[in-house]
Amino acid sequence: MNNMKRYVIGLDFGTLSARGVLMDVSDGRVIAEASESYIHGVMDRTLPDGTPLPPEWALQDPSDYVAALDRVMPPLAEAAAGGEVIGIGVDTTTSTCTPLDAQGVPLSVRYPDRPHAYTVLWKHHAAGRQAVDFERAAREKHAPWLQYYGDTVNLEGFWPKLLQLYDEAPDLYAQADTYVDFPDLMVLYLTGRLTRSEMVLALKVYYSQGECPSREVLSAARPGFESALEKLRGDIVPASRPAGRLRDKLAARWGLNGGITVASGILDAHAGLLSAGVISPETCLAALGTSGCYICPAEKLVPVPGITGSLSRGLVNMPLYEAGQSCVGDGFAWFERQLVPDDVRVRAAEAGLGVQSYLTDLARKLAPGQTGLIALDWWNGNRSILNDASLTGLIIGLTLRTRPEEIYRAFLESAAFGARMIIENYQRHGVPVKRLVLGGGIPQKNTLLCQLYADVLHMECLVPDGGQSTAAGSAISAAIAAGAYPDEPAAVRAMVPERYTVYAPDPADGAVYDRLYAVYAELSAQYGQTARNAMRQLRQIQENP
Amino acid sequence: MNNMKRYVIGLDFGTLSARGVLMDVSDGRVIAEASESYIHGVMDRTLPDGTPLPPEWALQDPSDYVAALDRVMPPLAEAAAGGEVIGIGVDTTTSTCTPLDAQGVPLSVRYPDRPHAYTVLWKHHAAGRQAVDFERAAREKHAPWLQYYGDTVNLEGFWPKLLQLYDEAPDLYAQADTYVDFPDLMVLYLTGRLTRSEMVLALKVYYSQGECPSREVLSAARPGFESALEKLRGDIVPASRPAGRLRDKLAARWGLNGGITVASGILDAHAGLLSAGVISPETCLAALGTSGCYICPAEKLVPVPGITGSLSRGLVNMPLYEAGQSCVGDGFAWFERQLVPDDVRVRAAEAGLGVQSYLTDLARKLAPGQTGLIALDWWNGNRSILNDASLTGLIIGLTLRTRPEEIYRAFLESAAFGARMIIENYQRHGVPVKRLVLGGGIPQKNTLLCQLYADVLHMECLVPDGGQSTAAGSAISAAIAAGAYPDEPAAVRAMVPERYTVYAPDPADGAVYDRLYAVYAELSAQYGQTARNAMRQLRQIQENP
Repeated sequence: MNNMKRYVIGLDFGTLSARGVLMDVSDGRVIAEASESYIHGVMDRTLPDGTPLPPEWALQDPSDYVAALDRVMPPLAEAAAGGEVIGIGVDTTTSTCTPLDAQGVPLSVRYPDRPHAYTVLWKHHAAGRQAVDFERAAREKHAPWLQYYGDTVNLEGFWPKLLQLYDEAPDLYAQADTYVDFPDLMVLYLTGRLTRSEMVLALKVYYSQGECPSREVLSAARPGFESALEKLRGDIVPASRPAGRLRDKLAARWGLNGGITVASGILDAHAGLLSAGVISPETCLAALGTSGCYICPAEKLVPVPGITGSLSRGLVNMPLYEAGQSCVGDGFAWFERQLVPDDVRVRAAEAGLGVQSYLTDLARKLAPGQTGLIALDWWNGNRSILNDASLTGLIIGLTLRTRPEEIYRAFLESAAFGARMIIENYQRHGVPVKRLVLGGGIPQKNTLLCQLYADVLHMECLVPDGGQSTAAGSAISAAIAAGAYPDEPAAVRAMVPERYTVYAPDPADGAVYDRLYAVYAELSAQYGQTARNAMRQLRQIQENP
Repeated sequence: MNNMKRYVIGLDFGTLSARGVLMDVSDGRVIAEASESYIHGVMDRTLPDGTPLPPEWALQDPSDYVAALDRVMPPLAEAAAGGEVIGIGVDTTTSTCTPLDAQGVPLSVRYPDRPHAYTVLWKHHAAGRQAVDFERAAREKHAPWLQYYGDTVNLEGFWPKLLQLYDEAPDLYAQADTYVDFPDLMVLYLTGRLTRSEMVLALKVYYSQGECPSREVLSAARPGFESALEKLRGDIVPASRPAGRLRDKLAARWGLNGGITVASGILDAHAGLLSAGVISPETCLAALGTSGCYICPAEKLVPVPGITGSLSRGLVNMPLYEAGQSCVGDGFAWFERQLVPDDVRVRAAEAGLGVQSYLTDLARKLAPGQTGLIALDWWNGNRSILNDASLTGLIIGLTLRTRPEEIYRAFLESAAFGARMIIENYQRHGVPVKRLVLGGGIPQKNTLLCQLYADVLHMECLVPDGGQSTAAGSAISAAIAAGAYPDEPAAVRAMVPERYTVYAPDPADGAVYDRLYAVYAELSAQYGQTARNAMRQLRQIQENP
C-alpha cells in the first residue's frame, strides 16, 4: 500500500471550459490533463430554448459543468490506474452564483425558460442598480467591512446578483433554498454536502471578522432582503481543508477509487498562488486570463481603496489583497475575433502560427511609442481601481497607415498600463510590491506581453516554467486537505519546481513608457473620474436615445 | 457635317486611377466609359526602384498617368467613330505637383532614384515645417490673400511642397524649369502648351486679385525662395476656356479626329459642380470620395476661417468656397482593408455583396446612439476647419460586444459630423447653405451615408441619379470650351438631367444626433483646439521617443 503511487486531481472551472490535472503527490509532476468546453458557453443573448436576454446579462447553464466534468474525469482516472487518488481540489470563477432548491438542484432544471433560474456568471453586468443600493445601505449603516473591499460594492459581486433575483423574480427567490457561489456548487455536487468556502465568503460575501453583512444592511438595501441570510447555509471550511468525500456513485462512474477527500473550493486566480509558488509578501501574482487578477500576500491587513477585496486569512495563511482588471485576454480575443482581417489570418496560417502569435511577432518589432496609439483597457468596464462597469474602451492615434499589429500592441500595452495603475495603488496604500509573478495562460503564450509588463512597471516579472496551471494549484490544495503535507509552504516546496523565466525591465523602453503611461493616466482620470465626459454621455445616449 | 454626332471627352485623374467618359454634346448622354489604375498607385513606402521613403511621404510616378491615358482613350475614341470629338476636359487631384525640365519632362524620368524628382501627391504630409514657415511669412508681411484661405497655409498645398523641394533638394529645385499642378501637367501633355488653370492658381497658389504671393512673402519664408515665381510660367486660362488643341500625334495614336479643343484643367471636386448641376448659391456640393470636399457657390466673397480656400470667380462664374474633409472613403476603406474579419467577408460573399455594402446593410438596422460609439474622422488629420494634419483618429465606447458593423456605422456617422462642422462654419461666417448635393462615388453606393448626412445636418440631401461622374463635369466644361454652349448654365440645362434622389431629414433621429454631435464637437474642441492633450502628446512621443 505504501508503495502505491499517490495522486491528487485539480479541477479548474473557467469561463468557457473545465480543465483537470492529475498530479503526483510526491513531486507535483503532472501525469495527465483533460479539458472540456461548456456546451452553451456564455449565454449573453438567449437561453438554450431561445428566450432572449436583456443587454448586460451573462448566464451559464449549470448542467454544462456536470457534463464537462463527465468528460474530464475518466481520462484522469484512467491515468491514475494502479495508484491511488487521495484528494480532489476545485477552483472556479466567482461570483458565479446559482439558486438551488432544497434538494440542492439548480432552479434552471425546473424552470428552463426563466433567465433568473440560471447560474449568473461573474461578468453579468445587469445588477448595477442593486450594487449601488447595497453600497448605499452599507455606507448608511457604517458597515465595518466596506473599507476592506475597496470602499465599493462591485456589480459583479454576490450580493448585487442575489438582490437582483429578489427584485426581479421574487417567486424564484422564494424557491431558492440556498444561493451558492461556483466553488461551493461543485463541492456540493462532488460530495453531496453543502459547505461554504471560507475564502470565497471572505472575499465575495463580505464575511469579515467572523460575520456576514448584517440584517440591518440587507434590509436597508431592500426591505425584506434580510431573508437572504437564510440562503447562506452551509458549514464554513477554510482553504486546503476537507469539505467532504467524493460520492461513491461518482467515483464508480468515473473509475476512481473510493474515499477521496474533496478540499474546500477556492477562487481560480488564488489557486495560482500555489501553482506559481507565490507564498510570501512583496510578490504579486498577476493571473492573466480573460480578465486579470492581482493578488498580493502581505504581512498585515490595511484598507486599500479601489481593490476587489482583502481578507485576513487567505490561501497561504496570511492576509491577502485582490484587485481585478476586467479585460485582458478577453480584449485580445475580441480583437482577433471581430477585427483581424483575412490576409493576416492567411499569413499566420502560412507561418504555422495562431493569429495572436503572428500579430505578436509583428508587434514585437515595433518600438515603444512608435505606433502613436494608446488604448484604455476598458472594453469590459474597469474593476480596479475605478470600479465602474459602465466605462468603455477607447483608442486614440489611428491613422490610415495604422496596421492591425499596431492596434494589437496598443492592446497589450494598455493591459500593462492598467496593471501599473493597480500596483501603484497597492504601494500607495501600504501594500508593498517589488516583483510580479505572471500566472494564468496568457504569459505562457505571449512573451512580448511579459516584457511589456516588466518595462511599464519597472519590475522584474517572473513566469513559471512549464506553465503550472490554475488546476495544478487546486491539486496542491487537495494534497494538503488530504493530509499529505501539513501546510502550503511544505506542499509548495515539494510540489512546485519554482523555475521561472525572468523578464528584466529595460530602462530605455521603460522611460518611453513612463511618458505613455502619463498619457494613459491622464485619459483614465479624464474619462474615469470626471462626472461629465464624452464616454459617459455616450452611455447615457445609448441608454436613453 | 452638321448631321454628324458631336462628342466631348471628360478625363478625371484620381488618386488611384484615371477615368474617362465620352459624352454626347447635345444631351449629355454618356456613350462610353473607361478607367485604368496607375501602375505604382500611391508610393508611400518606396520608389519603383525600392528606394525607401521617409514617413508621411506620398508620391506618384507621372509616367503612370500617361500609361493610364493610353488605355483609357482608345475605347472612347472607338465609341466616337462616325462622329466628331470637339473637346476634351481634364480634372485631377490637386495640389499634386511635378517639377519639369525646360522640355516639359518630369525630373523623375532622369532621376528615377530621387524621391524629390517625383510627383508629390495631394496627401503628402512631409512638408509640415514648410507650411508653418510659409504661413508665418504671410502673416509677417500682412499678405492680403491669407484671409481667403481660411487664414492658414495647409501642408497639402502647392507652396509647402515647392518649398520642401527648395529646402531638401536644391539641385533638383534648380533644374526644375517649371513646377506644375496636376491639371496643368495633363493639359501640357495633351496640347504641348504650358498653361495655368486660373481656378487652380486661385485656389491652390493663392493667386488673388490678379497676383501671386509676393516676392517679399517668399523670401521671408526662406531667403532666396523668391526664385520660385519664375517656375510659375504659363498663360493663365479661366475654366471652360480653351487651353490648346490635342496634339496630332496623340490624336493619331488613340484614333481620334484632329483639331480637338482641350479645356483649361479643373480641380476634380469642382468638376462635380457641373455634373451635379450645382450652379446657384445656398446649395453646397459635398463631393465624397477618398476625402470630402464641400464647395459652395455664393453671391459674394467674404473671409471664412478654417476653409481650404475661396475665389472670386470659380467654375460657375461666381464666388466659390471650398472646405475639405481629409478622410471619408479612405477611412471606410482602411477599415475594410485592415480590420474586417474573415467571417464578415464570407457572409458578404454569400449574400453576393461587397464587404462595405454588407456592413452597410447590417449598420442600417441600428438606431442612432445604439452603438454607444463615437469616432473623430481624423484618420488622415483634419483639413477643415482645424487645419491640422497631425490630428489622428479616435474611437470611444468600445466593448467586448462591439461588432464590426457598429464600428463601421460610427465611421459613417463621424463623416456626417465632420460635414456638419464644416457647414456650420460656412453659415456662421456668412456663406448660406440650405441643402446639400452629395456628389462623388460614395453617395451612389451608400444610401445609409446619405440618410445620415440628412439626419445629422437637418438638411435635405440630393443625390444625382445615375451618378454623373466627376469626369462628366470635365466633359461639360470641354463642351463650353469648344463653343458648343455659351456658358455653364446653358450647358447644364442641356447636358445634365437634374434628376435627384432626395433624402429628407428625420427629425426624431436628428434629435438623437444633435446630442451625439454635441459629444463629437466636445471631443473635437478637446483634441483639436487645446494646446496640450493626449492626442498631441502621443504624436510628440512618436516623433521623439
